[in-house]
Amino acid sequence: MTHYSEQDIQELNHIFKINLINSCSGYKSANLIGTKSKSGIENVAVFSSITHIGSSPAMLGFFLRPTTVLRNTYNNIKETGLYTINHIHESILEDAHHTSAKYDASISEFDVTNLKSEYKNDFLVPFVKDAPLQLAMEYVEEYHINANNTILLIGKIKGIYINNNLIEKDGFINLSKGKIATINGLDGYAIPKLQTRFGYQRPK
Amino acid sequence: MTHYSEQDIQELNHIFKINLINSCSGYKSANLIGTKSKSGIENVAVFSSITHIGSSPAMLGFFLRPTTVLRNTYNNIKETGLYTINHIHESILEDAHHTSAKYDASISEFDVTNLKSEYKNDFLVPFVKDAPLQLAMEYVEEYHINANNTILLIGKIKGIYINNNLIEKDGFINLSKGKIATINGLDGYAIPKLQTRFGYQRPK
Repeated sequence: MTHYSEQDIQELNHIFKINLINSCSGYKSANLIGTKSKSGIENVAVFSSITHIGSSPAMLGFFLRPTTVLRNTYNNIKETGLYTINHIHESILEDAHHTSAKYDASISEFDVTNLKSEYKNDFLVPFVKDAPLQLAMEYVEEYHINANNTILLIGKIKGIYINNNLIEKDGFINLSKGKIATINGLDGYAIPKLQTRFGYQRPK
Repeated sequence: MTHYSEQDIQELNHIFKINLINSCSGYKSANLIGTKSKSGIENVAVFSSITHIGSSPAMLGFFLRPTTVLRNTYNNIKETGLYTINHIHESILEDAHHTSAKYDASISEFDVTNLKSEYKNDFLVPFVKDAPLQLAMEYVEEYHINANNTILLIGKIKGIYINNNLIEKDGFINLSKGKIATINGLDGYAIPKLQTRFGYQRPK
């Protein structure tokens, strides 16, 4: 095995380090967050840090880097209190990944890619049309992470839209049937196939 | 598409709701966290919330539910300040998932499964032997999440051990070559195959 000590990691060149550290945590969720500014400009951006926080109430969180990236998504959420989470289908991988480019807030990624926005049930911010799984989200709270000035933003699930064939009898969403992507590192994508479910475990 | 409103979600039966909400965020990382109590009892438990926090310094976070699960992992980390993160290889899926069973702190999951502990370079807590990717971690800080009483625990990467064939020239760790798992929901596992890398994106 190759071993990198803490000091080795610190001394790696920038590109090698960000690739290494971004891929060492394992597979990540692949989502497009849709928002809209107060002035009406739509935004959509890829995020790989959407994480389950709790089921009752149903809440998800994600991390934002405040100083190193444009914060259109964050600013829009603060302005409207609303956002959408849209899963990335195999067919839109390239456009989805391109939303990581740093466009100015005056430009909508819906205009520079083939991604289409869609509005549902009076929710004021855009979903990504044809995404197999779409979530309507409302801002709840945020935490400033002292260790590196990132922000953890937590939201409540206000609505779930799922392609019918993905939901199993016990509520399990079969992401594999939806050809939904996962992210490896900063720019690697895979479309997993479900292998097995093991069920709830009790001590032997 | 099937639509669940916020009220629909609240009214779902418990099992359906936890399956639905745990699978609606997308694919999750599949890791075993290794710890050791002050009195020397080893613990290993599966976690699906390990998330990238930052590359410089290299830090990862994960979420713990304080009231609903036994907190052996949390208590051990607080006692020693140390833990390990070990990726789940295809060959140990069943044992890895079984560590989600609620064993008393006096019982080590290394004794009730075929998982083996391993010690490296004077690091005081156990790694999972034969894991293709192993991380030595040190506690940094934690945040109490008011919205639902979970805890976000953040740690610094003190060392990385990787099977040689997984690292590419630019630092990217090819999880697919390591037959590393991802988790769908509470109990679904897949072994993804990398499809493509798109590289760093700039505005068109």
